[in-house]
Amino acid sequence: MELEFIKKLIIPAQTKIAMVILDGLGGLPLKPGGKTELETASTPNLDKLAVQSALGLTVPVGPGITPGSGPGHLAIFGYDPIRYEIGRGALEALGVDFELGADDVAARGNFCLLDSEGILLDRRAGRIPTVQASTLIEQLRGIKVEGVEFFIEPIKEHRFAFIMRAPGLEDTLSDSDPQRTGVPPLEIYATTSNSLRAAEFANRFIQQARNILAENASANMIMLRGFAQLPAIASYQELFKLTPAAIALNGMYRGVARLAGMEVLKVEGSSISDEFTTLEKNWNDFDFFYLHVKKTDTCGENGDFFGKVKAIEEVDELIPRLVALDPDVIIVSGDHSSPAVLKSHSWHPVPTLLYSKIVRPDGIPEFGERACLRGSLGIIPAKDVMPLALANAGRIAKYGA
Amino acid sequence: MELEFIKKLIIPAQTKIAMVILDGLGGLPLKPGGKTELETASTPNLDKLAVQSALGLTVPVGPGITPGSGPGHLAIFGYDPIRYEIGRGALEALGVDFELGADDVAARGNFCLLDSEGILLDRRAGRIPTVQASTLIEQLRGIKVEGVEFFIEPIKEHRFAFIMRAPGLEDTLSDSDPQRTGVPPLEIYATTSNSLRAAEFANRFIQQARNILAENASANMIMLRGFAQLPAIASYQELFKLTPAAIALNGMYRGVARLAGMEVLKVEGSSISDEFTTLEKNWNDFDFFYLHVKKTDTCGENGDFFGKVKAIEEVDELIPRLVALDPDVIIVSGDHSSPAVLKSHSWHPVPTLLYSKIVRPDGIPEFGERACLRGSLGIIPAKDVMPLALANAGRIAKYGA
Repeated sequence: MELEFIKKLIIPAQTKIAMVILDGLGGLPLKPGGKTELETASTPNLDKLAVQSALGLTVPVGPGITPGSGPGHLAIFGYDPIRYEIGRGALEALGVDFELGADDVAARGNFCLLDSEGILLDRRAGRIPTVQASTLIEQLRGIKVEGVEFFIEPIKEHRFAFIMRAPGLEDTLSDSDPQRTGVPPLEIYATTSNSLRAAEFANRFIQQARNILAENASANMIMLRGFAQLPAIASYQELFKLTPAAIALNGMYRGVARLAGMEVLKVEGSSISDEFTTLEKNWNDFDFFYLHVKKTDTCGENGDFFGKVKAIEEVDELIPRLVALDPDVIIVSGDHSSPAVLKSHSWHPVPTLLYSKIVRPDGIPEFGERACLRGSLGIIPAKDVMPLALANAGRIAKYGA
Repeated sequence: MELEFIKKLIIPAQTKIAMVILDGLGGLPLKPGGKTELETASTPNLDKLAVQSALGLTVPVGPGITPGSGPGHLAIFGYDPIRYEIGRGALEALGVDFELGADDVAARGNFCLLDSEGILLDRRAGRIPTVQASTLIEQLRGIKVEGVEFFIEPIKEHRFAFIMRAPGLEDTLSDSDPQRTGVPPLEIYATTSNSLRAAEFANRFIQQARNILAENASANMIMLRGFAQLPAIASYQELFKLTPAAIALNGMYRGVARLAGMEVLKVEGSSISDEFTTLEKNWNDFDFFYLHVKKTDTCGENGDFFGKVKAIEEVDELIPRLVALDPDVIIVSGDHSSPAVLKSHSWHPVPTLLYSKIVRPDGIPEFGERACLRGSLGIIPAKDVMPLALANAGRIAKYGA
């Protein structure tokens, strides 16, 4: 179902939707026959909510497809993650909370080391300390090229975000990183005629950077790759007539939320509880809330099964504070699975709970992968969750007479 | 799956399919933890049939989309309800059993009241009694415009169906109803160049109507809105090589059935039992039967939970008469849900039963929302039911060698 189809049916309402995303929520048992992280966790509050909810499993992108955080979030936000892609460069810029505009072309930057012949010796410049990279970045900020504005933001060690801003720029550019040593960095070229100007700007930046860094012993060059603009997606205001807010501690999630038109709220502190406090404080001012929990994914990616269990339990203890706000619709889900046994994102469907006063309740007193399999949402594309949430919030008019 | 794909695989057979549609069948419990209307109803005959059937839930249009009766029926008949739309005007005409042709453009008509300056005082002409409206309609039937034929059929009170018939007419026309009082009715204009002639015909009709009604104290004008032609859908004969018949008491359902090429059978009487009698009488002459039960939806929309329970039980008692005819395939489903607690149509998936001698039986001895959730049909688009029914009727050939 196309968003354009739903958009035509959207009606305003005085209802509130809260979407709690536990990053990488779905898991796997440590041993066959065992329980997943979510099934292992003691979640009395989620279980209580589950009884009155419709449960199911969401497939973020497609069967067998392991989503990155970008596509995983686009999907649970209701957008087709295959149609709309957030390129590497744009993701890096979002990740450092850079407010990327529609005309900006972003890339991932690396410091690197060349020999006297200009041949790549080290693609990561010995992973120079972040503080040292920041000093170099200060120097690069002096680079000026007429007709374009450059932004450079440190990320970690040798990595930085690079952004070019000028009207009409396009991102169809090749990488300068050859992905191996023993050869010189590549010139950047335009892969379509629309990005000739962008290619020239990027090459001129690199040339000046090379001059500035020439005397540096560990990082005498930079490389740029993954040039990308933001996909042009319609906002929640435009599509759904919602006034949406986002609560997330990490830049990338704030960035994807901003892309959907959400106002990113300031969180005082850095705990999950602080995020719920932000939710409470802002409850009256918005009608859609996205609250992102990172810890579940971090533990999953670290292979820390019981850390992930604990993170889930930490969220469960905060659920009564959400319920006390009396949202019309509550979604609890993830952007993808991150089973601790895999130490990575995975394609496995994601447990999903949809609560509302007018949902058809499954009466299943448990929130877990196998419990969700018995639920009435079925196994659905993640992008179908938002239309269901909107319907449960009384925000979709009848189609046809 | 496209109908064109199925069409190529269709083979004739000596089998019969019976589709019983309980309008608005799906429901919700009165209280969380309770039973739905269908789960509450005592349905020994449906339960017995369920044991030998495949159960599932159908999604008429898409997740979160509440279908009107038009899209709900198109879907369960096998057509894509987003691709084929039945506009308001066409629905009104079908609703009064008008045999709308491909070139006909229909609209919903209202009597209304203007002041001496031509400003709208009452958009509904005080809801004049139907009998009085019928007298005025008799007068309007005298209106002649060269090159077009007009039809006007009373509906109820101030409402009537208006139809223009001429070769090549198109329905891209604006409304004359401004949707508010204090302004004059609008002229109808063509929204594409293909409907210039239709706009002229409609405006000339309205002008003559105004002259005829000028002296009437309560209804001195008419307004037209929702101009629509029937969507051009292929018939059951053409698509499925079926000889289909429809049994329905309300015009709209007869109309949609006619659109699919079904022969609409005359029902002696107006009870559900009378509909089953019609089925029995015509059993030998057709190989597909659509039998529509309205009462379930009426009770749902009226918020009458137990009335809906009773209507379901009334159908259940008649099921043995259907089974006695020994159909090869029986479908029991709805066109959408109409939970009494919502007093309206809704998006919730619809319980569906598919019986045949060669279905893989689920062995579930109950027909209800949660029983269907455990069934082997899964949660499927409503338009997938007909291909399954046809396969169970031995009417779809093997695809590929």
